[in-house]
Amino acid sequence: MEKTELQVEIPSVLKQTSCQNIKGFDCVDYGNGNNPNPLENAISDIESRGESTAGSNMTRLERKDVIIISLPASPSGLHIGQTKLVLHSEKCKNTDQNNTKNPYPQLAKQKKFHSQPILVRENGDRKVVHSEAVRDHRFDPFKTWSGKLERQISNLRGKPTQEADIEAGASDREEIEEAPGVDRYFDALEGPELDTLRATEVSVLPEDEKWPFLLRFPVNAFGICLGVSSQAILWKTLNTSPAMNFLHIGPMPNLILWWAALALILFVSFVYLLKIVFYFEAVKREYYHPVRVNFFFAPWIACLFMALAVPPSIAVNLRPFIWYILMTPIFMLELKIYGQWMSGGQRRLSKVANPSNHLSIVGNFVGALLGANMGLKEGPIFFFAVGLAHYIVLFVTLYQRLPTNATLPKELHPVFFLFVAAPSVACMAWAKIQGDFDYAARIPYFIALFLYMSLAVRVNFFRGIRFSLAWWAYTFPMTGASIATIKYTMAVTNIVTRSLSICLSAISTFTVSTLLVYTIIHAFVLRDLFPNDISIAITRKKPKFSKMLAHFRSSSSDSKDLDSSISKNSEF
Amino acid sequence: MEKTELQVEIPSVLKQTSCQNIKGFDCVDYGNGNNPNPLENAISDIESRGESTAGSNMTRLERKDVIIISLPASPSGLHIGQTKLVLHSEKCKNTDQNNTKNPYPQLAKQKKFHSQPILVRENGDRKVVHSEAVRDHRFDPFKTWSGKLERQISNLRGKPTQEADIEAGASDREEIEEAPGVDRYFDALEGPELDTLRATEVSVLPEDEKWPFLLRFPVNAFGICLGVSSQAILWKTLNTSPAMNFLHIGPMPNLILWWAALALILFVSFVYLLKIVFYFEAVKREYYHPVRVNFFFAPWIACLFMALAVPPSIAVNLRPFIWYILMTPIFMLELKIYGQWMSGGQRRLSKVANPSNHLSIVGNFVGALLGANMGLKEGPIFFFAVGLAHYIVLFVTLYQRLPTNATLPKELHPVFFLFVAAPSVACMAWAKIQGDFDYAARIPYFIALFLYMSLAVRVNFFRGIRFSLAWWAYTFPMTGASIATIKYTMAVTNIVTRSLSICLSAISTFTVSTLLVYTIIHAFVLRDLFPNDISIAITRKKPKFSKMLAHFRSSSSDSKDLDSSISKNSEF
Amino acid sequence: MEKTELQVEIPSVLKQTSCQNIKGFDCVDYGNGNNPNPLENAISDIESRGESTAGSNMTRLERKDVIIISLPASPSGLHIGQTKLVLHSEKCKNTDQNNTKNPYPQLAKQKKFHSQPILVRENGDRKVVHSEAVRDHRFDPFKTWSGKLERQISNLRGKPTQEADIEAGASDREEIEEAPGVDRYFDALEGPELDTLRATEVSVLPEDEKWPFLLRFPVNAFGICLGVSSQAILWKTLNTSPAMNFLHIGPMPNLILWWAALALILFVSFVYLLKIVFYFEAVKREYYHPVRVNFFFAPWIACLFMALAVPPSIAVNLRPFIWYILMTPIFMLELKIYGQWMSGGQRRLSKVANPSNHLSIVGNFVGALLGANMGLKEGPIFFFAVGLAHYIVLFVTLYQRLPTNATLPKELHPVFFLFVAAPSVACMAWAKIQGDFDYAARIPYFIALFLYMSLAVRVNFFRGIRFSLAWWAYTFPMTGASIATIKYTMAVTNIVTRSLSICLSAISTFTVSTLLVYTIIHAFVLRDLFPNDISIAITRKKPKFSKMLAHFRSSSSDSKDLDSSISKNSEF
Repeated sequence: MEKTELQVEIPSVLKQTSCQNIKGFDCVDYGNGNNPNPLENAISDIESRGESTAGSNMTRLERKDVIIISLPASPSGLHIGQTKLVLHSEKCKNTDQNNTKNPYPQLAKQKKFHSQPILVRENGDRKVVHSEAVRDHRFDPFKTWSGKLERQISNLRGKPTQEADIEAGASDREEIEEAPGVDRYFDALEGPELDTLRATEVSVLPEDEKWPFLLRFPVNAFGICLGVSSQAILWKTLNTSPAMNFLHIGPMPNLILWWAALALILFVSFVYLLKIVFYFEAVKREYYHPVRVNFFFAPWIACLFMALAVPPSIAVNLRPFIWYILMTPIFMLELKIYGQWMSGGQRRLSKVANPSNHLSIVGNFVGALLGANMGLKEGPIFFFAVGLAHYIVLFVTLYQRLPTNATLPKELHPVFFLFVAAPSVACMAWAKIQGDFDYAARIPYFIALFLYMSLAVRVNFFRGIRFSLAWWAYTFPMTGASIATIKYTMAVTNIVTRSLSICLSAISTFTVSTLLVYTIIHAFVLRDLFPNDISIAITRKKPKFSKMLAHFRSSSSDSKDLDSSISKNSEF
Repeated sequence: MEKTELQVEIPSVLKQTSCQNIKGFDCVDYGNGNNPNPLENAISDIESRGESTAGSNMTRLERKDVIIISLPASPSGLHIGQTKLVLHSEKCKNTDQNNTKNPYPQLAKQKKFHSQPILVRENGDRKVVHSEAVRDHRFDPFKTWSGKLERQISNLRGKPTQEADIEAGASDREEIEEAPGVDRYFDALEGPELDTLRATEVSVLPEDEKWPFLLRFPVNAFGICLGVSSQAILWKTLNTSPAMNFLHIGPMPNLILWWAALALILFVSFVYLLKIVFYFEAVKREYYHPVRVNFFFAPWIACLFMALAVPPSIAVNLRPFIWYILMTPIFMLELKIYGQWMSGGQRRLSKVANPSNHLSIVGNFVGALLGANMGLKEGPIFFFAVGLAHYIVLFVTLYQRLPTNATLPKELHPVFFLFVAAPSVACMAWAKIQGDFDYAARIPYFIALFLYMSLAVRVNFFRGIRFSLAWWAYTFPMTGASIATIKYTMAVTNIVTRSLSICLSAISTFTVSTLLVYTIIHAFVLRDLFPNDISIAITRKKPKFSKMLAHFRSSSSDSKDLDSSISKNSEF
Repeated sequence: MEKTELQVEIPSVLKQTSCQNIKGFDCVDYGNGNNPNPLENAISDIESRGESTAGSNMTRLERKDVIIISLPASPSGLHIGQTKLVLHSEKCKNTDQNNTKNPYPQLAKQKKFHSQPILVRENGDRKVVHSEAVRDHRFDPFKTWSGKLERQISNLRGKPTQEADIEAGASDREEIEEAPGVDRYFDALEGPELDTLRATEVSVLPEDEKWPFLLRFPVNAFGICLGVSSQAILWKTLNTSPAMNFLHIGPMPNLILWWAALALILFVSFVYLLKIVFYFEAVKREYYHPVRVNFFFAPWIACLFMALAVPPSIAVNLRPFIWYILMTPIFMLELKIYGQWMSGGQRRLSKVANPSNHLSIVGNFVGALLGANMGLKEGPIFFFAVGLAHYIVLFVTLYQRLPTNATLPKELHPVFFLFVAAPSVACMAWAKIQGDFDYAARIPYFIALFLYMSLAVRVNFFRGIRFSLAWWAYTFPMTGASIATIKYTMAVTNIVTRSLSICLSAISTFTVSTLLVYTIIHAFVLRDLFPNDISIAITRKKPKFSKMLAHFRSSSSDSKDLDSSISKNSEF
C-alpha cells in the first residue's frame, strides 16, 4: 500500500537545528541503519510487522513534536501540500543535495513529490517566527508582479534542487491564478454578504495571521464614501430647501462633509488603485464574487453623489461632460452585470439575487438625477428607464425570496435597507426630469417610505450582527430617503412632512455618526477594521479531504479532537 | 418486550359502572381469573406464552366493545394519548386507590404513565353521551379562560391522584398553546384554501362531532360582509351614475343593501369578538394560518366598502377621521404581512403565494378610493403606491406559479376571481385621485377586464368544487369589476360600454343572489354552513404513527380495514 | 420464463424470398432440425431445457443478418413494436396461412401477439426500397383522412390475416392520435426551440428519410413573413418620416417589399392551410408544442404588419373593421395561452417561459399601434394594457431565469432578440395612443435600446448555432427597434439620433438580407430548409427500453456498439 505523508513540524526547530537533524522532514540522514525519517521508519515498521490492518488507512505517530499522517497515495493525495509549501525550501538545499546520495532513488523520488511540509502547526505556545531571510511567498499568487522574477533568477542559477519547489509553486499558482467559478463562491462562502468561509473549506491564504494591508482592503471600503457623500447632499438640501428654512442650517455642514467625502474618496481610490496595481488577482477575485461585484458600482455612485453635493460656493452648474464621464463606467458595468442576469449560467438572477444588487440599480437613478439637475433630458430618461425595468425585476425577485437565492439572508440584515435606495432616488430623479414632484414621483417616494417603515419596525432583527465595513453602504438609502422626504416636503409643506423630514434626517445623521464611531474604534482601537478578506481566498476547486483536515487541524486547539476524528475517519 | 396500551372504551359505560368494572381502563381488578381488562389479559397471555414475535409489534384483540392496540413503549409511544385524556379522571379516583393494592406494582406504575384513555370510539350506533357532571374538557386548550381555575381548585384540595392527569393535561395544553409553525399548516392541510386535513394527519379536536359554534365560526365569515356591502356600492353607483340613468334605478336597493350589510357586519363582528374573547387560541391559529390570515383584512375592507356605499340619504360627505381609523389596522396588518413576505422564513412569498393574498393588496386600493372620495390627497396616493408595488410582486408571482407555491390550486378555483379585484378597484382609485378616468386608469381597468374574461371562459373548471363560506370573498371582485365598468362607461358612454355595465352588474348580482341562496340552504336546511374548522385543529408537531392510527380508526367505519392495515403494518 | 421477441430483418430479403424462407420472421419452418428461425430455436431450447436463468433476461443471437433480442413478456413488453409495424404485412399472407399448419398452435398464437417486425434496419449499404405496390402507411397517423377508408375496405373483403395488422395499426394510431402531454415535449426534446430529439427518445416517424413536404413545413415559416413585412414598415417609415428626409428614400422599396411580403404570406398561408387540411394531427402537435405554439401568433402579427406597411399609393386609411378581424384570433389565442400560464398544470409560466413567449405578447402592442394608427382609442388601450401586464410578468420571469424554465437556452441565442420586440413596438403604440412621443413612450423605447445593446455586445455568443427557419422571427425585433428609433428621431432630431436610426436600419436590413441568402441557399442549394420536423414526431409515452434500443440501433452505424451495449445490459 503506497502512502503519502503529511508532515507537521515546528518551524522554530528548523532554525535551531540543521536540516539533517529534522525528523519527519524531507531531509534524510542515511548515516545509520535506523532511518532518521521517522515516517519511513514508521511505515516500514508497520509494514514489516504486518501490523497495518486493511481497514485503517491512517496511521498516526507522534515522536518529538512530529505528527505524521499517512494517506493513500491516490491522485487526490498528490495535491496535498500545494497550499503552503513555499516556506522553508531555501533551508532545505543541503537536504536535497543529500538526496542525491540516496541509495533508494525510487523512494526518494516518491518522497519528493509526496511529502512536503504543509502545515505549520503551533505546538504549545510557541509562535511561528518567520526569519527575515525567508521572504513570505504565500501571498505571491495574488501579487501582480510576484515571484516570477525570482523564479527566473533561480532557474538561471540552475539549481535543480529547487525544481520540486518551483513545480509545486507553479501548480499552486495555477490553482489561484484562474479565479474560482461563481459556484465556488456559493459553495465555499456563507452569510448575507458571502464573506464567511464555510467550515468545510480552506483558505488559500494563511488564516492565522494578518495579510498585507492591500489584500485586506476590500472594494466595500467605497461604502464609506457613499455614506459620507450622501450626508453632504442631505445637508446641502437642508441648507437650500425653502421648506427647511426654519431650521436655519448654514452651508458649512455641507462644505465640511463634501471636503471630507472628497478626501475619503481620494484616499480610498488611491489605496484601491494600489491594490489593483499590486494585487490584481485579488481585485479580479473581488470582481468575480457574486455579492462583492455590486460594490464596484460604489466608487462611481460616490462620484455622482459628490457632483450632486457640490457646495454652491464651489460650483453652481457642473459641466455635462462630467456626467458622461461618470456614467460610462456605470453603463459598462450594467451591460456586464444585467447581461449576466439574463444570459444564464451560474450568475443568473434567480441565483445571485441579493439586496446588494440594488447598488447596481441605484446608479441609474442617481445618474438620472444628476443628469436632470444638469439640464440634460434624454440621457437621464435613458438611465431612468433602464433602472426602472431592472428595478422591477429585482424588486419582484427579492420579494419573492426564491429558494434558489442562496445568498439572501435568512433573517433581516442591514443590507435590506438597500431596498429603500432605488425608489427614494428614483422619485427625486423623476421629479427633476418631470420638473414637478407629481404623482408619478410620489409613487416611488411612498414605496420607499413604506419599505423604510417596514424595515424600521423590524429593527430588532438586526441585533447581534457583527459590524462590517459594508454597513456603510447600507446607510446611504436612509440618507436618500431623508433627502427625498425633504423634496417631498417642498411639494407638500405641512407640519407632518416637516416633522418627517427632520425625523428621518436625524435618524440618518445619527446612524452615520454611530457608524463613524464604530469604524474609528475598529480602525484604531480594535485594529480589526480590515480583517482578512476571506471572500477572495477561496480555493478554485473543492478542497480535498486532506486539505480540510489540515484546515481543521490548524483551527483546532486541541489535538485530541483531531486524533479522535482521524481515528474515526480511519474506520471508514 | 415493553408495551404501551391504547385503550378504547365507551364512555357511557363509564357512568354506569364503577371504575373497577370498567374494562380496558386504568383500573385493574386482579381478583378473579377472568381479568376484566382484556388488555392485561392479552399482554400477559402473549407474554406468558412467549408467543409474541419480534417482527409484529401490533396485536389487536377485541372483546366486549374494547379494542386494544399494543404498541412498543418507545419514546414516541409515551406521547400517546396526550391529546384527549382529561376526560374521566374524577371517576378514577378509587381506581387509583385500588392501584395501591396492586400486587404487581411495577406493572401498575408503568401503566400509570403509559396508558391513558385517549380515544372515545363510538361502537355501533351508540352515541357518545356526555353526562352533565362531566364537563367536556376537549376544547379547553382553545379556550381563553379554561380549566385553569378548576385545576387550581383541584390542586388546593390536594388530590395526589390527579397528578398524572394534570401533568398530562399540561403537556396537552403545551402542545396546543404554542400555535403550529407555518410549515405545519402546509404539511397538515391541503386544498386551495388549506382547509382540508391530509390523510396522514390527526386533528387535535374531535372530528366526529360538532364543535362549539364559536370554534366553527371562521374569519372567512367576513367574506359575506364583503359580498353584500360591495353590492350596496354597485347599486349606489347604478343609482347615481348619469351614464346609467336610463335604467331608472332608485336609491332603495342601495339603502336596503347597506342596512343589510351593516347588520351583517355588526353580527359577524359581534360573534367573532366573542370568539376572540372565549377562544383566543383559535383566533391565533387562524391568524397564523398562511391563507386564512389574509381574511383578517376582510372586516376592514368591508368597513371601507360601507363607507363607500353609504346612501346619500344618510350622509353625503364622510369625515376624513373615519378613513384614518379604518386605514390604521390595514396599515398595521400590511406592515406585518408584507414584512413576512420579504423577511423570509416559512412565510416568504415564494412559499405562501395564493390568490387570497389579493385580499391583503386590495385594501390599499379601496382605501385609496375612499380617501380620494373624501378629498384626501397624499394618504390615498401612499396606499395606492404601496398597493401598486406589492400588486406587481404578487401578480408576477401568482402568474408564474412557482413550484414552491404549495397552496396554489392545481385547477382554477373561485379564489382566482380575486385577481380581478385589485386592478378594478385600482382603476377607480386612480381615476378619483387623478380626477379623470385617464389612460393610467384605463390600463388597470382593461387588465381587470381581460382577467375577468380569461376566468369567465374557464368557468367550467369551477364545477365540482364544494361550497365554502370563503366563496363570498370571491364575489366582490366581480362586483368591483361591474362598478369599474360603470365608472368607465361614465367616461366612454356608448352602447357597448352600457351593455357591458348591465351585463356585468347582472352577473355579479346573480352570483351574489345564488350564493345567498346556497348559504341559506347550508345554514338552515343542511345546517352545515359552519363545519368543523379543521384548519385550526392541526397538531403542532407531525403526528406520531400511533396518533395517525387512532385517527384512522376513528374515521374508518369498518374495523376490518384496520385489522388488515395493522397486520400489514406489523409485518414491517 | 415467457419471452417476447424483437426481430430485425432486412426488408429487401422479404421481397426476394418467399415468406417461408425468411429467417427470423414470424414464418416458421419446422422441416429440418436446423430451425432457420434462431429465435424459435433459442426459445424452444431454453424452454425445453428450462435453462433460462433468472438473472439474464436478454439473450442475443445473430445468424444470417438476423438479430433477435428476447425480452421478458411483461405487459410493457407487449407494446413493443407498435410503432413501425405496418410495413410488410401484405407479403406475409402466405406466412400466416402457413401458420395454420403450425404444429405448436399455442406458440404460434403467442407469436402473433408478440413478435412483429418493427425495425427496418439497413444492412450494409443496401437501401430500403419501397415497392410501389406497398403504400407507405407510416405517415398515416398524421393524416387527416388516412387509411380509414382502406381499412374499411380491407375489413369488407374479410381478410382475417390482416387482423393483426389492423389491430396493431389501431393501437399505433391510438398512440399518435392523442397528442403528447406537454411534459412529453419537455422530456423528449431539447434545445432553446425544443426541436431536437433527446438521445433516449425515438421518433414515431421514420428519421432516416425525408417526410412528406407538408409534414416538414412548420408554423415557424410564418417567421419569414414577419421578417419581410417588418422590413416593408421600416422602408415606409424611412420614406415618410420627415426626420429621415435627408436620405431621400423613395416609396419603391416599401412597395416592393410589401408585395413580396404579401406574396410570401399568401404562399405560406396556402401551404400551411394544406397542412391543416391533410395533416391536422401534425398541426395539433405543433399547437401543443410549448415553444411552437407561440408561432401561431405569427400569421396574425404578420397581417398586422402588412396593414401597418401598406404603401400610401395603395391605401392611406384602412377601415377599422380590418383591425377587429385581425385582433379576434390574437385575442382568442391570448385567452388560451395566458390562461394556461395562470391556470397551472404543465403549461404554467414558470415551466414554459421562453423568449419565444414574446411573440404572444408583441401582438398586443402591434395591434395597439395599428388600432391607434386607424384612429381607434379604447381597443388599442385595451390591448396595450393586456400586453403591459403580461409583458411585466414575462420580462421578470425570463430575466430571473428560474431553474424550472426548462426551455430557456443555457447560452444566448438569437431567440433572445425577441426581448427587444415588445418594448420597441410598445413605445410606438403608446406614442400613437398618446399622440406624442412623451416620457411614457421613451421609457419602453430606452428599455428596448438597452436590451438591444446588451445583446449586441454579446453577439459572439451566437456563433456556432446552426441555422433554423425560426431565426426569421428573431429579425423583426431588430427592425422594430429601427422603426422605433426613427420615430424617436422624429421627436428628438439631432445628429446622434439620426445616426442611430441609419445605423440600426442598416443592421436590420443587412441581417434580413443575410438571412434571405441563407434561406435561399438552404432551400435551393442544400435543399434542407425544411428538415424533418422532429418536434412533432415524439411518442406519446416514454419509449420503452426496447424502442430506445431500436432507435439506438437504427442510428448507430456500428453494430458492435449495440452488441456490447446489449451484453452489458444483459448483465444486469
